[in-house]
Amino acid sequence: MAKAKGPTPQSQDFSAWYLDVIQMAELADYGPVRGTIVVRPYGYALWENIRATLDEMFKATGHQNAYFPLFIPMGFLQKEAQHVEGFSPELAVVTHAGGEELEEPLAVRPTSETIIGYMWSRWIRSWRDLPQLLNQWNNVVRWEMRTRPFLRTSEFLWQEGHTAHATKEEAEEETRRMLGVYVKFATEYAALPVISGLKTEKEKFAGAVYTTTMEAMMRDGRALQSGTSHFLGQNFAKAFDITFQDKDLEEKYVWTTSWGLSWRIIGGIIMTHGDDRGLIFPPKLAPIQVVIVPIYKSETRQEVLEAAATLQAELKAKGIRVHVDDRDQYTPGFKFNDWELKGVPFRIELGPRDVAAKTAVLASRLGGKETLPLGELAAQIPQKLEAFHQALYERARRFRDERTRVVDDYESFKEAVAEGFALAFHCGDIACEKTIQEETKATTRVIPFDAPEESGRCVRCGKPAAYGKRVVFARAY
Amino acid sequence: MAKAKGPTPQSQDFSAWYLDVIQMAELADYGPVRGTIVVRPYGYALWENIRATLDEMFKATGHQNAYFPLFIPMGFLQKEAQHVEGFSPELAVVTHAGGEELEEPLAVRPTSETIIGYMWSRWIRSWRDLPQLLNQWNNVVRWEMRTRPFLRTSEFLWQEGHTAHATKEEAEEETRRMLGVYVKFATEYAALPVISGLKTEKEKFAGAVYTTTMEAMMRDGRALQSGTSHFLGQNFAKAFDITFQDKDLEEKYVWTTSWGLSWRIIGGIIMTHGDDRGLIFPPKLAPIQVVIVPIYKSETRQEVLEAAATLQAELKAKGIRVHVDDRDQYTPGFKFNDWELKGVPFRIELGPRDVAAKTAVLASRLGGKETLPLGELAAQIPQKLEAFHQALYERARRFRDERTRVVDDYESFKEAVAEGFALAFHCGDIACEKTIQEETKATTRVIPFDAPEESGRCVRCGKPAAYGKRVVFARAY
Repeated sequence: MAKAKGPTPQSQDFSAWYLDVIQMAELADYGPVRGTIVVRPYGYALWENIRATLDEMFKATGHQNAYFPLFIPMGFLQKEAQHVEGFSPELAVVTHAGGEELEEPLAVRPTSETIIGYMWSRWIRSWRDLPQLLNQWNNVVRWEMRTRPFLRTSEFLWQEGHTAHATKEEAEEETRRMLGVYVKFATEYAALPVISGLKTEKEKFAGAVYTTTMEAMMRDGRALQSGTSHFLGQNFAKAFDITFQDKDLEEKYVWTTSWGLSWRIIGGIIMTHGDDRGLIFPPKLAPIQVVIVPIYKSETRQEVLEAAATLQAELKAKGIRVHVDDRDQYTPGFKFNDWELKGVPFRIELGPRDVAAKTAVLASRLGGKETLPLGELAAQIPQKLEAFHQALYERARRFRDERTRVVDDYESFKEAVAEGFALAFHCGDIACEKTIQEETKATTRVIPFDAPEESGRCVRCGKPAAYGKRVVFARAY
Repeated sequence: MAKAKGPTPQSQDFSAWYLDVIQMAELADYGPVRGTIVVRPYGYALWENIRATLDEMFKATGHQNAYFPLFIPMGFLQKEAQHVEGFSPELAVVTHAGGEELEEPLAVRPTSETIIGYMWSRWIRSWRDLPQLLNQWNNVVRWEMRTRPFLRTSEFLWQEGHTAHATKEEAEEETRRMLGVYVKFATEYAALPVISGLKTEKEKFAGAVYTTTMEAMMRDGRALQSGTSHFLGQNFAKAFDITFQDKDLEEKYVWTTSWGLSWRIIGGIIMTHGDDRGLIFPPKLAPIQVVIVPIYKSETRQEVLEAAATLQAELKAKGIRVHVDDRDQYTPGFKFNDWELKGVPFRIELGPRDVAAKTAVLASRLGGKETLPLGELAAQIPQKLEAFHQALYERARRFRDERTRVVDDYESFKEAVAEGFALAFHCGDIACEKTIQEETKATTRVIPFDAPEESGRCVRCGKPAAYGKRVVFARAY
């Protein structure tokens, strides 16, 4: 598995760099079916940490997990007009099963609003059955033309939350609460600075009244939609006849929301933090937070490995995810490169002279080395992981801020979106948004919640601006 | 949601009882597509506990999780002759995707030996790449004619472990090790007494050299195959050309295993432990181990609920999964029935007189009530949960042993399999096994590892017995 050289430099070809690091770090490989990937153990361990973290946050906000079927009768998808328009071009369809042609073809779920709506219409009778606060971790299929590992794959793993409420207010609160959970996760765990806000009509989820989103900037200046939360109003309630008897004894439609975050967040972590040497994983999600590389010759092997094992036990006792790389067939230099490629935040180098002096060298994946007493490592590393997280976040925020420009004319807009985010006014007209996309490849990413109120004229057509504030435009994944 | 009456009694119609408790306890509901189910939060919480327990056991034995794609090119399944014969009648097939007909139809995975074999043929080069110790938690689809919630569903959740080894010995050891993990899980967590051993040729996994299994007895005397571990020899290695360069520099085929346990174990838990009042969940897997039912009138409501909250906090601090049922709209009697239906091991009844006396009534789902000091509950319940587990296991073991008969003639055999397990000699001939199945509906379930060595004559045809021991026959789910 020895690799003679590192990934393609980011500056040379960012896309090639991305594909290189995924393969070389053994996060994932291509599956035999177009657009599918195999997530290998190191990549899956990252996903497990993402899942465990979010799952705890969902449960803390009162949600319960459930499991709804993979196959959805085609007729279900047609019940909500926008929904079918958005998803039918991407459906994978089962036409035969058990050796026979099916009477009604089955869609492989692209998302589960319809089948959950169908079940809710059977389960919900009274206001006492509300709210319904459900989530599921599952696989979905969307047959897209252009695929890229993690970012856009024919099949992907995600979670989809679905809730039903007695009132509009409650459902809108839920929509915002769950976007808030995503933002907290992005900020405090994935070290991704994100801009949260509304999607425009053109960019909203097919079937939503409105969509809230968080958007991150990748190191090539492009945006990544990293999690979305949708207020669905009564669109699905009406399509699936989901009603309840309220306290006032009136029969009413419920109000629903849905919210999802997928393994594309792994793509976001890779492209926000990585560098020419490979991945850099945020410590709270990293499968391995600290790698110990013992440095030995045959006569010092035993004592060094024993010291490494002792240190490993001390770090484990502090809850640190630590690995000892005792592969005899590789040199320390090879191992240093390998774990840098794999994005492990800290490396501990431990040789016979260190063992004798009761010290070790601690090297950060963000640069810098220091020699520390062996006995102090376990006590110091937790705060160093925290500081690493902060530094990673700040670095990404600075990068994003440096590449974000406030623009008022179309030429400056084009320059801005060629390398990052443009904060610009827009008229709100879908046709104008499409023209901008055709001419610059940029789309509206988000109408930020916290942008100052401002008025102005559309950066392209000059008509009065909509939204009462500037909008983030960018080229996006 | 008030249910006027309990489930159909087991003695009246065991199958109706099973379907009733699943619906009434809100474990699952039927999906809109034939043979699919929706697992509701209470059922899914049980599955999460099963998954977390097994996942830890898999990781402790060196396995890593990964994720392989849902869709498998049809050609892959045809590469192993027995495998395609076993699975092709049950396949669901995607023929259209993205609005177009696919050039090669895709099978929705019924199991993943083939796609993992394909990836291994790309990943494995040297003995240093072995063993491969992988597992995945996922959904699979098998289109079966007769379906029943959890036991046989068109789609089901499971885990499938797949390993590749340099030697036959190692692969056989792994096969046994993982069956051992399943047996430990069944015994120590699910409280299921199981008989472990080999499957006959007729009953083995399609593509295996041999299959090991654990079999449990349900309360209607039928058997449930509850987890299987397969030694695949070099069958898939040869079909997918999975070779490695060994230490002796020779190119060799790997030896593979696979092992799986699905949500059918939930069916096993229901049918092993449940009674006419509903479910009885084994404490280590129960979503709720203790339910506190506060008993109050409006004037005592606050003090009783406060005492309940205090007690809940004390139990939680001991790691006990506890729920307070403070639903005002139901009577205590209704709640008692509801939680008995839902199989919660212990109920704590707490009224104003208890609060005044600093006591509470502890009722076991297995029968019996005692009054205990409030301050001692948190300390005593952990050992009571352990004793509950033991009692549940022993009860099931006794039931099974009472319904297991050693038989040497075909008439006694027929009587035995009508109500439980028959321990009988068999000639080992597949045609004879099929005749027995046609005539009695019973199949060979397992050739037990620990049965004494004995010789005799086939219970049906009188030919000399194979296997050197008696075989377990039963009607099976």
